[in-house]
Amino acid sequence: MIPQPPPVWSLHPQLERDTANIGDLPLCRVLVVRDGNFPWAILVPRRVEIVEVIDLDEVEQAQLMTEIARVARALKSVTGCDKLNIAALGNVVPQLHVHVIARGRGDPAWPKPVWGHTPPREPDPKDFDRLIASLRRKIWLPQPA
Amino acid sequence: MIPQPPPVWSLHPQLERDTANIGDLPLCRVLVVRDGNFPWAILVPRRVEIVEVIDLDEVEQAQLMTEIARVARALKSVTGCDKLNIAALGNVVPQLHVHVIARGRGDPAWPKPVWGHTPPREPDPKDFDRLIASLRRKIWLPQPA
Repeated sequence: MIPQPPPVWSLHPQLERDTANIGDLPLCRVLVVRDGNFPWAILVPRRVEIVEVIDLDEVEQAQLMTEIARVARALKSVTGCDKLNIAALGNVVPQLHVHVIARGRGDPAWPKPVWGHTPPREPDPKDFDRLIASLRRKIWLPQPA
Repeated sequence: MIPQPPPVWSLHPQLERDTANIGDLPLCRVLVVRDGNFPWAILVPRRVEIVEVIDLDEVEQAQLMTEIARVARALKSVTGCDKLNIAALGNVVPQLHVHVIARGRGDPAWPKPVWGHTPPREPDPKDFDRLIASLRRKIWLPQPA
């Protein structure tokens, strides 16, 4: 028997399509959603076949919380938002991913949750690049060369 | 100057109204939402004036994750649900609270998020009592005398 190589983690194609990859923390890939309506990050643990938070072991769960807090602090600092929305839903895209969204009292969905409320709006490229650069700096992710 | 007593934590009146209190974990009060549409727990850290996850200190954040996982495992085990939805939103009720909701492919909102989708339905009292008793047992909260 030839031993099988271990399965390799890869990002779910729908997350790949809807987001920009801004770098990796020790556990999670950090993504920014291409939606000009909301400053919106997503964390995806780079672990194969994980669907629920409780599929991670306890050390990974603690690390996930650390990384959520790191991205949330950065997003709040960069946007000056009124409220953070943090959620792991996954009813449509099963790969475990955690939304961290900066909400403002004047945003298109306020005070409702963002999912399914407002169709995504192509972000202004300069604004989007600026958001990504600021988030990378605050999260301490390397800027691309 | 007479020293002021420290402020005392109390549950937000809207959470009080919409839920049953099933007991306290070391950090959080555990509630069950009175909605027959979804088996739905809420964790509320018993800390004064906390709005965001990042308002908690790092030790409390780690404890929050531990308690979320404990309630999520219990809810999944009791309901056999298809998916867990976990979220800290708080756009309407500012006191930090974390939803842990058991979702099923046949439930009234599937695959959408539950908030604002389906009007709450008064649960059958026997079903509701049974859900609470099962959750207390699985979370290791004491049964009332």
